[in-house]
Amino acid sequence: MAAAHSSSSSSLPLVLFARLSASIVATLVIIWALAFKTSFLPNSPSQEDLIYAVLHPLLMVIGFILISGEAILVHRWLPGSRNLKKSVHLWLQGVALASGIFGIWTKFHVNDGIVANFFSLHSWMGLVCVFLFAAQWLIGFWSFWHRGEARPIRLRILPWHVFLGLYTYGLAVVTAETGLLEKLTLLQTKREVLKHTTESMVVNGLGLGLALLSGMVILAAVSPKHHQPSNAARIIFSNKKHSSS
Amino acid sequence: MAAAHSSSSSSLPLVLFARLSASIVATLVIIWALAFKTSFLPNSPSQEDLIYAVLHPLLMVIGFILISGEAILVHRWLPGSRNLKKSVHLWLQGVALASGIFGIWTKFHVNDGIVANFFSLHSWMGLVCVFLFAAQWLIGFWSFWHRGEARPIRLRILPWHVFLGLYTYGLAVVTAETGLLEKLTLLQTKREVLKHTTESMVVNGLGLGLALLSGMVILAAVSPKHHQPSNAARIIFSNKKHSSS
Repeated sequence: MAAAHSSSSSSLPLVLFARLSASIVATLVIIWALAFKTSFLPNSPSQEDLIYAVLHPLLMVIGFILISGEAILVHRWLPGSRNLKKSVHLWLQGVALASGIFGIWTKFHVNDGIVANFFSLHSWMGLVCVFLFAAQWLIGFWSFWHRGEARPIRLRILPWHVFLGLYTYGLAVVTAETGLLEKLTLLQTKREVLKHTTESMVVNGLGLGLALLSGMVILAAVSPKHHQPSNAARIIFSNKKHSSS
Repeated sequence: MAAAHSSSSSSLPLVLFARLSASIVATLVIIWALAFKTSFLPNSPSQEDLIYAVLHPLLMVIGFILISGEAILVHRWLPGSRNLKKSVHLWLQGVALASGIFGIWTKFHVNDGIVANFFSLHSWMGLVCVFLFAAQWLIGFWSFWHRGEARPIRLRILPWHVFLGLYTYGLAVVTAETGLLEKLTLLQTKREVLKHTTESMVVNGLGLGLALLSGMVILAAVSPKHHQPSNAARIIFSNKKHSSS
């Protein structure tokens, strides 16, 4: 347990930086959703539709991206048994998945039906992303309740789980960025928002914050837990080791 | 040399898949640029301006993203000495960097001067990306010509070079995706292009192809060169090793 505790300390600065970026992102998306409500006005004047339209970025950025980022970081800072870490990771990812599904559903509710949402790159990537996320979560859930069985198989799958998980996380960030650009270009083309306004700056800042956050989270996830630069280098350039031996 | 050759073979299917995605991406961006030329029409009717406008996506996607992807893959398939691999990697990245800088310059040429390009998230991310890329390339160039000196420092820097390089590559893909959404939303809002047209499908396909390509390239770059699942798992979950020893 003591080993687990000390092992976390080397990636703690990264975890703190990631959380700092996450706070900036959360603040900016809340400011955008609350202070620039009119940007989210749907064609219909109903108050309910406005709420759904504002909920979409909040659920996707805070519920889906920020919470799944926290879930990824769990292995880096939470002291305690591996079982506890896995359990917290699994449930946080479950909350993120639920937010993602609800966030997509708000779009099916507001617009002209379900089909209208299947023609943009943003929606295509979002659907691929939530599908991958759900598949990963189900495999993780199954594997968590079948701990005793098939340990060697689980160890073989682990690097794939890490890679596919980080890829899905990256894809979620890409999808969010395309959503920001789609919304802002729409508003700017309709001349409701100019390029130099506060709203543009808030949305651009949100986009940069997301790019920074994803870098921090992925770096924290892949960096070795102990200071083993030679070990990491050996894995990456295993050729060298071979030719010298 | 034989070891280096056999070591490459395990990631060869990934390299082939990456190249397949790259071919699809290249085909789609060329179709877009040539068959839907009118989408790139700038405000001025000059033929020269049209050429610059069409050059931007071609240079950024084929010159910057596809060539730097090839440069990343060099370490995975090219037989021969590490020196040869490094040299090919360095020069391919140099071509990619030149394309990126020229690609940005085409935008400074067409639009209302330089400053007009500094207000969108797409341009901010693009500038950050090319800046990071140039910094990485210069460090790589310096390090290549100072091989004899400071070997331990280079080995310590290596994992950072790999991470920052892959992050920059990912950021380039994100920037391209935002560019696609920006352009398509602009065209769709102006009613020149409808959501269900061939052009929308080409651009959406291009976006999905880029997302797939980046996943393949990054997976090929980080996957262990030999079949060492236990080794990779040990690095990722080094806690486990510690508690059992």
